Parts: sequence; structure tokens; C-alpha cells
Amino acid sequence: MLTLYSGAKTCSLACAIALEEVGADYNVVKMDLPGGELRSAAYLAKNPKGRVPALATDKGIITEVLAIMAYVAQTHPKVQLAPTDPFDFARMQSFNSYLSSTVHVNHAHNRRGARWSDDPAVVEAMKIKVPQNMSDCYALIENGMLQAPWVLGQNYSLADGYLFTISGWLAGDHVDIAKFPRVHDHFKRVGERPAVKSAVEKHGG
Amino acid sequence: MLTLYSGAKTCSLACAIALEEVGADYNVVKMDLPGGELRSAAYLAKNPKGRVPALATDKGIITEVLAIMAYVAQTHPKVQLAPTDPFDFARMQSFNSYLSSTVHVNHAHNRRGARWSDDPAVVEAMKIKVPQNMSDCYALIENGMLQAPWVLGQNYSLADGYLFTISGWLAGDHVDIAKFPRVHDHFKRVGERPAVKSAVEKHGG
Repeated sequence: MLTLYSGAKTCSLACAIALEEVGADYNVVKMDLPGGELRSAAYLAKNPKGRVPALATDKGIITEVLAIMAYVAQTHPKVQLAPTDPFDFARMQSFNSYLSSTVHVNHAHNRRGARWSDDPAVVEAMKIKVPQNMSDCYALIENGMLQAPWVLGQNYSLADGYLFTISGWLAGDHVDIAKFPRVHDHFKRVGERPAVKSAVEKHGG
Repeated sequence: MLTLYSGAKTCSLACAIALEEVGADYNVVKMDLPGGELRSAAYLAKNPKGRVPALATDKGIITEVLAIMAYVAQTHPKVQLAPTDPFDFARMQSFNSYLSSTVHVNHAHNRRGARWSDDPAVVEAMKIKVPQNMSDCYALIENGMLQAPWVLGQNYSLADGYLFTISGWLAGDHVDIAKFPRVHDHFKRVGERPAVKSAVEKHGG
């Protein structure tokens, strides 16, 4: 049995989508982020980083979206959510790593600026460039990185659920997804998948 | 033939270490970062993100440290730089993803704050919390994430060259590596490997 520790409106949705796509037997534990549950002693004993997502497995806890998603795919190989060819796997992980270490980080300067400054005026000032940074990232995704119908082309992969998750944050970052028609089509296409609908329902968006 | 596009004092060193460890046939192209070569039309045609590292292969360009390193390991499986068991691979990629999306990002607020604000006073203010954030990350690494003698325990892996690379930035972030004795020992142990010495020499540190 797998247990996904998740938070509403976080990137843990991408892990829930992967779990639904492979038909995994799993529970979701929704953590109370506003209530500070990530800093509770009980959770820090599981994940000392105090973040979500975390996936509890029979072998131990896995953290970080890229690692969790690849684990889910590789332990359910028949569903082919991740390429097995090293170059194609690298293409997918390159896309996913761009989302986690650049796009998600730009987004985090909107609501999580306190990670990088204790001065409320600086935290507020960090929000200003978020729409431009997110737009710049999505221009790159729109004009080259995103194939069709899926991120990698003909084969749906982990990258699709992850892009869907972060594209869902654009409105909150004051970026109109309609400015990026290929991304917008992709967002709607992924959202129509039964596994994605089920993940959104269980995870809470 | 592989070509690594790299920059001095960047995380591309971690890719150079992986290439040396597997004995790959590769060239290094040192990009002139202060001179703005990453924004040149010639480089943007190769990598529209305008960042290093990038690895040119016979099949195309791969970007992002995690993806490049895993590609190098998986195309040279005899050297065993990456576990093949899904859980152990996830452990390694979780560690590497923490370095790329949290530790490297904290470090970047020291010299690359202009990514997140156009206001010079805000960019300057972002530097203040860098030593604390890097220390907090390294406390987690010291007290649980880092096994011995290597990150994953008995088996040297991609995570070791990557941690070595980022640990080398601590002094510039005003963090004394000696505060973290297990990390410090690891840094010295990795630095003694012939492949790492060769990578540092070719890459420029």
C-alpha cells in the first residue's frame, strides 16, 4: 500500500495523477498546510524537510515530485508513463526538472517569498516579477518544449500531469493561459482524462 | 561524441564529473558567462533557455543536471553510477532534486537575484538570508540525508559529484563547511577521486 501526503493546490497533485494513471492502490493524507501541520513533530519524523508531497512505500519514504513520479511509473511499467530509452527518459526528466527547479520556483515567489527574505517589504516586492517570469517560461514551453498532443509527442507521460498541475496555477499568478494556445489546449486535453479527474477529486485540486 | 556546454563555477561541473566517472568520449565547450555568450543567437539556437549545462548528443540536446547525469549513467550501465532498482533510483533522484530545486535555488539568491526582481535594492536584500538558508539545507543533509561513505551508503553515485559541486559553493555563501563534519569529510573524499580531479581541471572548478 502507498500513502501520498499531499496539500491542496500544491504540486502533489502531479503525483496523485501518476498514481491514478497506473491504477495504484493508495491512500491520500491531506495535510493541513494553513494550520502548520507540515511542521508538526509527527510529520517531520516522516519527512524532515516539512514539505509535500511525500510518498510512503513499504521500503520507506520518497520525497520530491520527480522522484515520486518516476518511482510510480517504474513500478508499474505496463502503463508506460515513462520512456525506458535513456534519451527519451532524459527528455522527459529535463522537462520535469525545468518545471520543478525553474517554473515552480518562479511561481513560489508569489506566495512563498518568506523562504528567501524575512523582510515583509522584500517578500511583497518579490511578487512583482512573477507574472513576467511565468510568462517567459510558458513562452518557451509554448514555442518548442511542448509537443502535441502530449509533452513528448504521441506518448502521454508523467510530464503531462505535471505540466497540467502547474498550468493550473497561472491564473493565480495573473497570467492568462489563453495567451498560450498550445498550452491551453494541452491543459484542457489532460483535464479530460478520467485518471486526472479522479486525482483532482481525491486531491482537492 | 558528446559535447558538454559548461560555465565555470556552475552546476555543469556535476555533469563533467559523471562524464569522467564513466570514461565517456566528450568535449567541453566553456561558455563565456560574464561576456553574455549564453544569450547569443548561436547558443539560444541550441538551448533556448540560455543556461548551462547542456549536453549535445547524436540524438539531440539534453538540458538540466538531473536529466544529463541520469542519461550519462544509463548509457554507461557497467559503471553503475545510478541504481537500477526503482526505489534506490528514487532515493538518488530525490536527493538530486532537493539539490536542484531547493539548495541550488537558495544559493542563486546570492548572485542571481535579478532573476526574481528588477529592483536593485530587492536583489541586494535577497542576499541576506542565503547563509541561513544554505545552513538549514546542509543541516538536513548532515543529519540524515547523507549516508557514508557516499550519499547512498556503500555505492558511489551521481549524487556524490552533485553534492561535491554544491558544497564547493558554501564558502562563497558565507557558510563554513567545517560546521558540517560529515559533509566536509564527504567533500574531501569525493575531491580525491581521479575522475573528479580530472573533471575539475577540464571544467575549471
